[in-house]
Amino acid sequence: MKLVKEKAVQPIPGGTILSPLGYKAGGMHTGLRYAKKDFGVIYSEKPAQVGAVYTQSHFQAAPLKVTQESILKSHTLQVVVVNSAIANACTGEQGLKDAYQTREWTAKRFQIPEEYVAVASTGVIGEWLPMEKIEKGCNEIEVASTEQSAESFQQAILTTDLIEKTSCYSVKIDGETVTIGGCAKGSGMIHPNMATMLGFITTDASISSTLLQKALKTAIDQSFNQITVDGETSTNDMVIAMANGMVEHDTLHESHPDWHHFQEGFIHVCQDLAKQIARDGEGATKLVEVNVKGAHSHHDANILAKKIVGSNLVKTALFGGDPNWGRIVGAMGHSEVTIDPHQCDIYIGETLVFSNGTPQPFNEESVSQDMQAEHVIISVGLHGGDGKGKAWGCDLTYDYVKINASYRT
Amino acid sequence: MKLVKEKAVQPIPGGTILSPLGYKAGGMHTGLRYAKKDFGVIYSEKPAQVGAVYTQSHFQAAPLKVTQESILKSHTLQVVVVNSAIANACTGEQGLKDAYQTREWTAKRFQIPEEYVAVASTGVIGEWLPMEKIEKGCNEIEVASTEQSAESFQQAILTTDLIEKTSCYSVKIDGETVTIGGCAKGSGMIHPNMATMLGFITTDASISSTLLQKALKTAIDQSFNQITVDGETSTNDMVIAMANGMVEHDTLHESHPDWHHFQEGFIHVCQDLAKQIARDGEGATKLVEVNVKGAHSHHDANILAKKIVGSNLVKTALFGGDPNWGRIVGAMGHSEVTIDPHQCDIYIGETLVFSNGTPQPFNEESVSQDMQAEHVIISVGLHGGDGKGKAWGCDLTYDYVKINASYRT
Repeated sequence: MKLVKEKAVQPIPGGTILSPLGYKAGGMHTGLRYAKKDFGVIYSEKPAQVGAVYTQSHFQAAPLKVTQESILKSHTLQVVVVNSAIANACTGEQGLKDAYQTREWTAKRFQIPEEYVAVASTGVIGEWLPMEKIEKGCNEIEVASTEQSAESFQQAILTTDLIEKTSCYSVKIDGETVTIGGCAKGSGMIHPNMATMLGFITTDASISSTLLQKALKTAIDQSFNQITVDGETSTNDMVIAMANGMVEHDTLHESHPDWHHFQEGFIHVCQDLAKQIARDGEGATKLVEVNVKGAHSHHDANILAKKIVGSNLVKTALFGGDPNWGRIVGAMGHSEVTIDPHQCDIYIGETLVFSNGTPQPFNEESVSQDMQAEHVIISVGLHGGDGKGKAWGCDLTYDYVKINASYRT
Repeated sequence: MKLVKEKAVQPIPGGTILSPLGYKAGGMHTGLRYAKKDFGVIYSEKPAQVGAVYTQSHFQAAPLKVTQESILKSHTLQVVVVNSAIANACTGEQGLKDAYQTREWTAKRFQIPEEYVAVASTGVIGEWLPMEKIEKGCNEIEVASTEQSAESFQQAILTTDLIEKTSCYSVKIDGETVTIGGCAKGSGMIHPNMATMLGFITTDASISSTLLQKALKTAIDQSFNQITVDGETSTNDMVIAMANGMVEHDTLHESHPDWHHFQEGFIHVCQDLAKQIARDGEGATKLVEVNVKGAHSHHDANILAKKIVGSNLVKTALFGGDPNWGRIVGAMGHSEVTIDPHQCDIYIGETLVFSNGTPQPFNEESVSQDMQAEHVIISVGLHGGDGKGKAWGCDLTYDYVKINASYRT
């Protein structure tokens, strides 16, 4: 009999933020949205170590300021409270007061210190929160560890999203099974340095805040920071990771023999969620992946991949299934990355369409067919170094225009 | 009787590239396009001093290389030959040969040295020119100084453009009337550092190549480089200015008393053309102008203005007439320019919608009405310095997607 060695990092189909030990969640309708759930909470039985990354927008929304304050003070979280429909961004002093009030009510409800609470909001910019609805949410929200409660939370954080976004991986650490679960929202205003997206990652691993922050940053640079739907960064983007140490193993450190498994699992969860966001981009009909290799550095490769996947002309060609690789050249042409046009290969799917500065003969119909797939891959080889990078996005469609020409009405 | 002083710089309605003395032009159908004119020439009776600016794309098309070589050698031009339909970009060695061949045929036809010929192409990337059609064009093209011949040329350079783009100003120099005329094409792939656009400017002023180049660069930074339709830069962008000195006046220099009038007229012509390109952006229903003031520098103000006018979410809101200023904030938020959100004012048309970090009450219906105009102005005040800047663009519509999802079919 042949022994099959169990993989150290494994996907858990159907897993959620409640798959790791010691977490509960819930979602409810408070009236911020017409009928859909609009208010949710993640709760950790034990105070959890925390990592967090925030939007780089100059106009950072009020809840992000309050959350940063909590985390800076305690390095620990027990509850994340989220509302959709209204972003509480560009709302001045009143907006800040409202975010503090939300934190206070939530702390009271769960009987924990205020600095153990993170606050997140997503939705329309420039409107104040109707605080009586938020108060109702804080008072009445129920949390549980069931599948339904995870789903309620996942639904409560959506805005123009069409699908819930979840991912879950297990990782072996000291022979114990540690779980990393995640969920996210995001559909428009999706671009560099955190998009209009919220991401929540839970794990039962034992790890310090400092190292969790590092794992999160590494994962985000290869996932959420490499997606683009429309080139926009929102005021409210935030990813929060919580680690409650419910699984007993030697606390992770960078020379721990299983450290790289944990990091790998973390990256998988973030990439899964990022790709789901790109695929669910407003009006999108397909997921687009751009792979760049042969750049001077990974950084350059990532920049170029994102430039291509973010080009309106590439995106419309992908919608139309038009193998017009001139659009890819156009997008590459004005990137700040060093490119030698005479050494450059471009593939659409498996087909080489451009090489060494000249067009390659190819079957247009068959490539057009490839471009109609659910997942289209564009690959670029620069032959200038060892830098590799990936980025994800979606096509640009009539529905994108439709959704965004009348968002609020 | 009151004397009205004649303005030193005056628009000439209906003026063209043939309004300055000593120029001829023509356009014809060679079969590159199905039925429309696709081949044109501008001819100066006297060899003209020249200024030129080229795309910054890594993938510079073959005709640009040939034109640069001509101009570097002679600093003088007598003929510009242009074809539409095929860009002769990403066409390798063969493409370069074809561009040289085009130059050679044109020089022969007009009996001038090859280095007095500039070559320009616009259209699809990655296809070779059918040279028998180009040869036919070179041999058969007729030039004249009539209105019809100017119009033929203007038509011959268009691709997805819906309208011909022309501008003309007169300027008093040493009491003499000097004329500056221009025409342009461009509709898609319109963004920084020269878009998929060709611009041709003629003048009968007496000016050196060096100073003409300087005047052109100054004008371009405030015009063509401040428009965006889709964030893309093409492989073929080029603006060429010719000055044939047919009007007798002291050769212009920077301390000439009328120098600033010439520069001003030049800027006017370029801005006129740039705005016409933005308004004629693929699928556009309106011209959008963004004014930024109070930035740390003019450079910062220009960057921010262009960021806002280039945002897909702002552009779709403008299409829908949705006064969702949160989109403007979103676009500003991830600009590299320093912004203090608490000191920032935003106007849509005449209406203040955001000030000092908080939303301002306004009549949504009336602002929505303002956004339906042919020309919409967004103004931003940063209160951080004296920097001013402007940028122009258009809305993002169903037709943009339609045009670009099936460009070649």
